[in-house]
Amino acid sequence: MEFIPSITFIGSGNLATHLSTNLFHKGFVIHEVYSKTIENATLLASKFNASATNNLAQISDKSDIYIICIKDDLIEDVIRNFPFKNKLVVHTSGSVSIENLKGFDNYGIFYPLQTFSKEKEVNMFHVPFCIEANTKITEKRLVALAESLSENVYLINSEQRKKLHLAAVFACNFTNYMYQIANDITRKNDIDFDILKSVILETAKKIQKNTPKAMQTGPAKRRDEAVIKKHLELLADLPAYQEIYQLITKNIIKNS
Amino acid sequence: MEFIPSITFIGSGNLATHLSTNLFHKGFVIHEVYSKTIENATLLASKFNASATNNLAQISDKSDIYIICIKDDLIEDVIRNFPFKNKLVVHTSGSVSIENLKGFDNYGIFYPLQTFSKEKEVNMFHVPFCIEANTKITEKRLVALAESLSENVYLINSEQRKKLHLAAVFACNFTNYMYQIANDITRKNDIDFDILKSVILETAKKIQKNTPKAMQTGPAKRRDEAVIKKHLELLADLPAYQEIYQLITKNIIKNS
Repeated sequence: MEFIPSITFIGSGNLATHLSTNLFHKGFVIHEVYSKTIENATLLASKFNASATNNLAQISDKSDIYIICIKDDLIEDVIRNFPFKNKLVVHTSGSVSIENLKGFDNYGIFYPLQTFSKEKEVNMFHVPFCIEANTKITEKRLVALAESLSENVYLINSEQRKKLHLAAVFACNFTNYMYQIANDITRKNDIDFDILKSVILETAKKIQKNTPKAMQTGPAKRRDEAVIKKHLELLADLPAYQEIYQLITKNIIKNS
Repeated sequence: MEFIPSITFIGSGNLATHLSTNLFHKGFVIHEVYSKTIENATLLASKFNASATNNLAQISDKSDIYIICIKDDLIEDVIRNFPFKNKLVVHTSGSVSIENLKGFDNYGIFYPLQTFSKEKEVNMFHVPFCIEANTKITEKRLVALAESLSENVYLINSEQRKKLHLAAVFACNFTNYMYQIANDITRKNDIDFDILKSVILETAKKIQKNTPKAMQTGPAKRRDEAVIKKHLELLADLPAYQEIYQLITKNIIKNS
């Protein structure tokens, strides 16, 4: 791979922490960490003997790549106030277009498709990285950087990335919310939520090798009107969940 | 454990197949298989050197336990037409009450909380079994039978079991449907659905050790109105999924 010697992180949150730590362990030099809050910048930078700053105007121009790891709605502002344009700058967002970066000489997207929690260490080997770049050379460099962390590196353009991010909301965020509804229902009835954990894991494992369509089971799939009616009655005291049950059931019946 | 020497299966579908095969491998005698369709009864019975019948009136009274493994709405009919009452009879349904069995001397529920597909062999060691019985002695026998298959055996009464089954619809069936929506969105945009598989598995793994509430992420949880608005626009050509997105997002915002 083409060697990328040193990296500046713009941001010090969950993703910045996991990404910088993983890259550091792979031998990359983390040169500097910027955060609006100097304590956060210093905390993360101290792990790598890097410098820390909360002044965007004064970030070092000595790095080879600048990785923007901040909330989507702050990215534009950081790009606008970036003190130099002749560097390779990437962001890590699933929903911000590559167009926003076009003021830089070289730019791209370095989007890891994973949900990160600060407490939990993540081995990135299975995390899919979605890469996009303004030139073939930059693309090659970003792919090499991603491949140093993960076995799953994909070239995905901005339009696709937005759709992928949307799909991930259904596949992960909404899925997790289904777990929460199940948790609420069991807790309210003195049932141990643990009973459901093996079937939850099994459901996620099944679609690793089959399509979700082939794996669909349950009363809606079977068009079991009697059970559906009984379930809606059982949800009488949880009208919000009743509404969700009804809508998804209607969809499964229509689509299967 | 108290020894249960021989078993009759009423039914020959997915669950009957997996349950009888697992019990046979644990050393139990499968004495007979009943199915409305004689070919199905014979096919399953032939795996165990068992007899097969499609005539409920003539099933053997030589078994020690009769396990009803058929669709919920057929259970009542089978119970009504059962040729003798002095045996231990259980059903395996998540949503049918134990009351339906009260004409028998001994009866109970033997409900494995798992989704079964005919093709895939299932090791039942982690499958939770929910047990209910009319007497303490029958309860002990059913628990012992379940414990011969699984490490996760729970005593769950009929009211709880109905709620648990409802919770499982959210946790598994609706979860799988979220995967299907994600699959539809990626496929429509020439994106490999495989990209999402690791994050799907990670999401299911996370709640093995954390509450779903603590693990909730995504634009709704962050109240990221800009991304939510963009996602709803991206779903303009999929109004059914747009409606689901909107409803679940509203719920996550309200509950977190």
